[in-house]
Amino acid sequence: MSVLIVGSTALDSIRTPRGERDRLLGGSASYAAVAASFFVPVRMVGVVGDDFPRTYLALYRRRGIDLAGLQRRPGRTFHWAGEYEANMNRRRTLHTELGVFEQFRPDLPPSYRQTPFVLLGNIAPALQMHVLEQMNRPVLVAADTMDLWLQTAREDLLRLLRRVDLFILNDSEAAQLTGEDHAVAALPRLRALGPRWVIVKKGEHGALLSGLEGMFIAPAYPLRRVVDPTGAGDSFAGALLGFLAAGRGAWQTRLRKAMVYAAAVASFCCEGFGLTRLARLNREAIEARVRELQQMTRF
Amino acid sequence: MSVLIVGSTALDSIRTPRGERDRLLGGSASYAAVAASFFVPVRMVGVVGDDFPRTYLALYRRRGIDLAGLQRRPGRTFHWAGEYEANMNRRRTLHTELGVFEQFRPDLPPSYRQTPFVLLGNIAPALQMHVLEQMNRPVLVAADTMDLWLQTAREDLLRLLRRVDLFILNDSEAAQLTGEDHAVAALPRLRALGPRWVIVKKGEHGALLSGLEGMFIAPAYPLRRVVDPTGAGDSFAGALLGFLAAGRGAWQTRLRKAMVYAAAVASFCCEGFGLTRLARLNREAIEARVRELQQMTRF
Repeated sequence: MSVLIVGSTALDSIRTPRGERDRLLGGSASYAAVAASFFVPVRMVGVVGDDFPRTYLALYRRRGIDLAGLQRRPGRTFHWAGEYEANMNRRRTLHTELGVFEQFRPDLPPSYRQTPFVLLGNIAPALQMHVLEQMNRPVLVAADTMDLWLQTAREDLLRLLRRVDLFILNDSEAAQLTGEDHAVAALPRLRALGPRWVIVKKGEHGALLSGLEGMFIAPAYPLRRVVDPTGAGDSFAGALLGFLAAGRGAWQTRLRKAMVYAAAVASFCCEGFGLTRLARLNREAIEARVRELQQMTRF
Repeated sequence: MSVLIVGSTALDSIRTPRGERDRLLGGSASYAAVAASFFVPVRMVGVVGDDFPRTYLALYRRRGIDLAGLQRRPGRTFHWAGEYEANMNRRRTLHTELGVFEQFRPDLPPSYRQTPFVLLGNIAPALQMHVLEQMNRPVLVAADTMDLWLQTAREDLLRLLRRVDLFILNDSEAAQLTGEDHAVAALPRLRALGPRWVIVKKGEHGALLSGLEGMFIAPAYPLRRVVDPTGAGDSFAGALLGFLAAGRGAWQTRLRKAMVYAAAVASFCCEGFGLTRLARLNREAIEARVRELQQMTRF
């Protein structure tokens, strides 16, 4: 089954302790779509300007991503520039230029409306809702978010969460939204907002899944050297939805495996700047890392 | 097989967001000995003053702990007072009175020298070494430490590590000792200091084991409510050694299981002030929590 992914498409200028790169392909939809494409056909919704490099369109196409929902508008593509601190756990934004993203309205091509799996990647909750309203009874709706929306669009986000099956966020966002510093305490409060399942991502410390069926503690792949963590969370969400859409059987089993595949893909993401590592990844390498994770968590 | 445990024995006055308690039984040896006692006979080495409450001696005895190595000296028992911040991840010391601990010299009774498993709990590395030098070819020597010794007794600690099989420390200590912010990067450097295995404890995020056989990612038990984290690390180390000493077979399998049992015992420790929860714990409750951890990590 296929996955519809909406989010930002951007050009990123990134500085980390490992180096710097200018105008890389980025944005939540780009990372998530490429990550999901290792598992199922992907339909992407986003917007780019007339400065968007053809090579990046070619990259999407090489991954078999359906671009019928990728709008091309006169103007400049969303540009983000940021810098990571020495330990890579904190970053600061140096520059943001919204460009054509400012007027983005994610209207879906008719061919997209029946997509069974939907990932509402990190964009304004009102836009995520707009996509959801155009869908025809999807099997599973997942939403990611970021701290910005908790501050500027909290009510929109809370409205959206009542219609989301799976909510994915990181630990600091979970703390911000619930007032609970620890993910374990935040999870039941997050589920009370509507979603049947909640995943709290903890970066190098793995992720927690909470649902009626209980809790799952997912490992992170232990990376010795992180080159660039940009997009790791988006890649996690994309691979998660891709694996879920490719599977069958009980949700709990699928969700657990999906989180481990997602951790593997996210770890590859961190090994190169932007999407460079994911662009040359293949399913075999992902499977090998999942087997390693299996080996490293067995007791 | 039995475990010898050396460390501090103290009276702790603790304030956490959940309340405060005065002159509770504490110290690294107390926590570790009680935690290990659920698995094997324990021999404790420590020192107490003449103000040490009989009820605390009774508590050790109820857990079957051999007190031949517990010295009783005229003077006051080591007293520590501390306070935890709202999220329990940081604490500050309000008061320290070394008392009889200042002159502590851990001379072993002859009956202790053949103990096959040794846990050098958190005390000055020179004292840990003094214990090691009195032992007669133990099967396995584990050592715990704390940030204080990294600052004040680094050379002693490095000398000790060349004679230790299993080194246990927390993530911030690992960063301080190696200059590597991330545990995964710190682990190979720590093993290069001598120990065959290194365990980095990450609190609520679990623990990592590194050895020649590869890495193991151990979960933490997801506690919704922490009452008092004091002694969780010492309990982890004590339960770990206790389980190892009780087992047989390949080290790798035993170490992995031991870490999960240790996580379970440490989680119980956090559910009450000081040793109050561990004092009324039993093996069945530990086994139930280990089964839960098995269920929560299976994929």
